[in-house]
Amino acid sequence: PQSKLPALGTTIFTQMSALAQQHNAINLSQGFPDYDGPDYLKARLAFHVAQGANQYAPMTGCAALREAIADKTADRYGWQPDAGAEVTITAGATEALYAAITALVRRGDEMICFDPSYDSYGPAVELAGGTMTRITLQPPAFRVDWSQFAGLITDNTRLVIVNTPHNPSATSWQAADFEALWQAIGDREIYVLSDEVYEHICFTAQGHASVLAHPQLRQRAVAVYSFGKTYHMTGWRVGYCIAPAAITAELRKVHQYLTFSITTPVQLALADMLRHEPAHWQTLPAFYQAKRDRLVQALAASRFEVLPCEGTYFLLVDYSAISDLDDVAFSRWLTEHVGVAAIPLSVFCADAFPHKLVRLCFAKQDATLDAAAERLCQL
Amino acid sequence: PQSKLPALGTTIFTQMSALAQQHNAINLSQGFPDYDGPDYLKARLAFHVAQGANQYAPMTGCAALREAIADKTADRYGWQPDAGAEVTITAGATEALYAAITALVRRGDEMICFDPSYDSYGPAVELAGGTMTRITLQPPAFRVDWSQFAGLITDNTRLVIVNTPHNPSATSWQAADFEALWQAIGDREIYVLSDEVYEHICFTAQGHASVLAHPQLRQRAVAVYSFGKTYHMTGWRVGYCIAPAAITAELRKVHQYLTFSITTPVQLALADMLRHEPAHWQTLPAFYQAKRDRLVQALAASRFEVLPCEGTYFLLVDYSAISDLDDVAFSRWLTEHVGVAAIPLSVFCADAFPHKLVRLCFAKQDATLDAAAERLCQL
Ligand SMILES: CSCCC(=O)C(=O)O
Ligand SMILES: CSCCC(=O)C(=O)O
Repeated sequence: PQSKLPALGTTIFTQMSALAQQHNAINLSQGFPDYDGPDYLKARLAFHVAQGANQYAPMTGCAALREAIADKTADRYGWQPDAGAEVTITAGATEALYAAITALVRRGDEMICFDPSYDSYGPAVELAGGTMTRITLQPPAFRVDWSQFAGLITDNTRLVIVNTPHNPSATSWQAADFEALWQAIGDREIYVLSDEVYEHICFTAQGHASVLAHPQLRQRAVAVYSFGKTYHMTGWRVGYCIAPAAITAELRKVHQYLTFSITTPVQLALADMLRHEPAHWQTLPAFYQAKRDRLVQALAASRFEVLPCEGTYFLLVDYSAISDLDDVAFSRWLTEHVGVAAIPLSVFCADAFPHKLVRLCFAKQDATLDAAAERLCQL
Repeated sequence: PQSKLPALGTTIFTQMSALAQQHNAINLSQGFPDYDGPDYLKARLAFHVAQGANQYAPMTGCAALREAIADKTADRYGWQPDAGAEVTITAGATEALYAAITALVRRGDEMICFDPSYDSYGPAVELAGGTMTRITLQPPAFRVDWSQFAGLITDNTRLVIVNTPHNPSATSWQAADFEALWQAIGDREIYVLSDEVYEHICFTAQGHASVLAHPQLRQRAVAVYSFGKTYHMTGWRVGYCIAPAAITAELRKVHQYLTFSITTPVQLALADMLRHEPAHWQTLPAFYQAKRDRLVQALAASRFEVLPCEGTYFLLVDYSAISDLDDVAFSRWLTEHVGVAAIPLSVFCADAFPHKLVRLCFAKQDATLDAAAERLCQL
């Protein structure tokens, strides 16, 4: 058949994980932990399966989970969404992003995003018949120039996608960034898709700034979250999104034909976890900060230059002192010849991104981080 | 926001299940069993979770599951797909249908389907910018007039969607139907989406006819299957599709941004089940035929006229002798005043379908079927 996504190959994460396996490299490429999630959560899944909670969940998600999410959101961001009309459980954050873009972007609409950007935004916009306006941010700070942004808004601009803490740059927005966004779009019918899957992996003094904490923006925003990242269970495939009722209604029309509903016993186990083990997410920043610091310290003895990491479980390193290869070639070389798999940054950019940066995932056991650092220090 | 699916409400299954709950009715509407899946399968899920198989599965699906599927397919349909290039694990059959339609239908393309038809086909085509040509089949036989079908093919026809055993008509195709389809489309670039989620719930002497058993058609078909139906676990949300490598490549481009990958420990448990308990699916027709026959016999004492049921776990009944209400009104009345929830047939049809038919799900414990029949016999 003729391809509807002719330019698209297999995602970089699949490619690099396969290459890592082939060369038996330490895999710091695709973002997933090499440790397991909480025993309590696993036990609760086994419990609900044994109890027979194995038929279709409600299309919107199990009430127990939506209510636990609403309460936790109030706790954390000072505003409580309506569990019935504003919270939807999805097949990972991936489905939430796809459903939101499909529901909001019409043929001819423009979406603005900031490159480097996560690779799933583009194809969803393309399939919806929209176009993508990309603003490439520059390392090391990856800051938005808001007057440049304002100049790119047109009558067709429909959706802005933001991501904080940001994958792959590891930077994090503050409340002032959301306010600047509001100033730029407040007087138009422009929606915001806020990818906040690393909400609990933020190391700034102020902590994670959510779109939900902005009283005006949240009235036109879809905020997207991931249980996989928070509970070290990337393979369980449950995420959720929070959006005003009118947006949620449209998003659910898509969701109900995309996946219909999400694994029932997994939802119930996650509801138990949210209710009974809030300490897990409350201590997550400290847990990941220790891992970040361990890797940063170990790399101090290397020729890599480490960039600041404000959030996510990724660290950017500059290899200018080591190699002249471009970042894609360097990532392959690093995997094949040094035995450490990394992700090049340029694959997240539509325009040229001629920096010598690769991304390392530090959601790994200390021994894994130490072994990888030892190899990297030999360069 | 302006709706991209303005005509669309909440799916009838969600509506009727909610109404059933509200009125404490016996729920024979939405198709799901009121009994649990095999203990072995549940134990294997708990095992893989405990073992730590909790991170991202490969985007295409776990190799163990894809290989078990390929072997079983060879067993059952006399032809073995390539587990690597032709089998993809999806978030239920729902995601497979959506991904296939999104990958194959371009703006302006036409898709042909047979009404009454499952409600997820239409919205996916609409979102892809295609149009739907619908052929309404008539009860009780719901047979296709192949010369009428041939007359509807145009240069823009891109995809035909078939479904056997058929939900909601409970009829089943034979190999000759697929041959007639091949004769009608063989000389054009037209693809086939074959929804075979009830492959193991077929009561005809010849058994289920799969598109995969047709050597020419399978070279341009996506065949879609569901573990939820086969293993009484509709809430686990795992299905799969089989298609030639070139089609699969396009379908996976969509799948990787729709859901990326499917719940890992559930996939591994299903692989174990396929390998070690083939008797489960081999005995499924007898299991469901007993339930069908029980309900049919119980309704012999009622004023409902029972239509033939060749497959699926649904039975159509004609209520002409009981009420003049249209089928939507009758279904609501039955739920609210008789305490039995059913699904009207006309909601599966875009054109008028002025028949007095409702659908009853018999994937229920014998006691549930008996209690429902007792109420229905009082009318
Ligand atoms: C869905 S696989 C990619 C995991 C991830 O989010 C990343 O590595 O950036
Ligand atoms: C996805 S909920 C609908 C279940 C079903 O297939 C049916 O009742 O027809």
